[in-house]
Amino acid sequence: MRISFLGLGIMGAPMARHLAKAGHDVTVCNRTMAKAAAWVAAHGGQAAATPAAAAVDAEVVIACVGADADLRAVTLGRDGAFAAMAPGSLFIDHTTVSAAIARELADAGAARELLVLDAPVSGGQAGAENGMLTIMCGGSATAFAESQPVMEAYARRIGHMGPAGSGQLTKMVNQLCIAGVLQGLAEGLALGEAAGLDLAQVVDVISKGAAQSWQMENRAVTMARGEFDFGFAVDWMRKDLGLALDEARRLGVTLPLGALVDQFYGDVQAMGGGRQDTSSLIRRLAHR
Amino acid sequence: MRISFLGLGIMGAPMARHLAKAGHDVTVCNRTMAKAAAWVAAHGGQAAATPAAAAVDAEVVIACVGADADLRAVTLGRDGAFAAMAPGSLFIDHTTVSAAIARELADAGAARELLVLDAPVSGGQAGAENGMLTIMCGGSATAFAESQPVMEAYARRIGHMGPAGSGQLTKMVNQLCIAGVLQGLAEGLALGEAAGLDLAQVVDVISKGAAQSWQMENRAVTMARGEFDFGFAVDWMRKDLGLALDEARRLGVTLPLGALVDQFYGDVQAMGGGRQDTSSLIRRLAHR
Repeated sequence: MRISFLGLGIMGAPMARHLAKAGHDVTVCNRTMAKAAAWVAAHGGQAAATPAAAAVDAEVVIACVGADADLRAVTLGRDGAFAAMAPGSLFIDHTTVSAAIARELADAGAARELLVLDAPVSGGQAGAENGMLTIMCGGSATAFAESQPVMEAYARRIGHMGPAGSGQLTKMVNQLCIAGVLQGLAEGLALGEAAGLDLAQVVDVISKGAAQSWQMENRAVTMARGEFDFGFAVDWMRKDLGLALDEARRLGVTLPLGALVDQFYGDVQAMGGGRQDTSSLIRRLAHR
Repeated sequence: MRISFLGLGIMGAPMARHLAKAGHDVTVCNRTMAKAAAWVAAHGGQAAATPAAAAVDAEVVIACVGADADLRAVTLGRDGAFAAMAPGSLFIDHTTVSAAIARELADAGAARELLVLDAPVSGGQAGAENGMLTIMCGGSATAFAESQPVMEAYARRIGHMGPAGSGQLTKMVNQLCIAGVLQGLAEGLALGEAAGLDLAQVVDVISKGAAQSWQMENRAVTMARGEFDFGFAVDWMRKDLGLALDEARRLGVTLPLGALVDQFYGDVQAMGGGRQDTSSLIRRLAHR
């Protein structure tokens, strides 16, 4: 298929690469043009100067950019993709953004007869590199059905969660769960360390029961060692928790732990840890 | 071996039963004597009127009682076990108590040439019934070595975590991790429910990635359904978090999530949920 990919960041670049490898005709577009040129030199296809230019003749346009404002710019802004897309073509957004903008794009797309899917991912940079992402989708059954064969190039698991915005809402649930797991783990390890326990041994014993979590199995040892230069960055997690807190305010739900851990990530940012893995929450407890 | 078991609650009774089934000569002792008589009628062995009477001639004395005060009463109190135990005999405590009393009993035991092990368990009532508990032990290498063949009657996993008190400290780490996992999960599900997502589908999609936890796999669906009449009671979790908070205060560690979730469990108690499973945290968010 003729697919245009907008945004060649640490997630977008490997996702676009998987599409090219799967045999699609890929056009890439990136704010920093040099990045798009380098991508084309490495993986083939062609680079476009603007989202609109990328969207002309594309059967599918995919975005993986920064936040709501970036997404609005590449879709509805000047030289945005939507005005250039042909009726019946498909727009997939992999950015983690608000459910509100997901619905806004779904409406704007419907007015132009575009199929639109909000499809935030989890699995991090490693998942994008290995083509093992989990994708949580919101949109019509048709948009979902059309996008599935495309996304299979880089996904291990794809779920259709409901109408427009449902993918973003599911991603919020995911991030809230992670926030709770990590802060609990950080406090447990900080207490254990202060008490003189061997943390690797503690994790070995408790990780087979009711306290078990992916984070415990994959991050407790590096947390105990104070290693945080990998994984999913605190800056992005704060963005995601902010989206969940905004949505909760709108829905009349309280997220006391979500709000608290968001503030704690603010502490980690102030300690210079904005680009460290989310497990760096332990730094503010263990004073590292 | 001649083993005396003090405390036939929902954990102690099945543990003592596993010992009898493994061929040990078991004497039981319970505050409510009728319970001990009923246990003997069902499983054999003999009942003793006091911990001291149970301890005479026992090679091993095991306690599984309520809290610090109960444990002190059955060991060092009037008619307590310690004064009646023979030098060289072994005392195993399965109660979840403070690290301070674990150390106090280790010292009092050492003065009488007793081997003492603090050995709190996790796995809940189901783990005790099935003989699949995890046991976190603190004490000397000798006490640990002597106790292991006894505890194997009801344990799947036994760890020696360090000197006296280390078993209790490890249990605190375990409970803090659970508190974080559950509150994060509760907030995520409450947000998802308010947003109209299908929670079973959400859990299915996110439970294979970085948000995964034992609690998500085993409690999310019942949380979504509002089922809490099983599992580990809020009242006991509050006791355990209180122990962790006291220990943290002593060590100069802060547990902001632990303190907050402890308060939330207080809300659940005030809502009449003291005997409900710890996953009932979602009640105060979803107003059920």
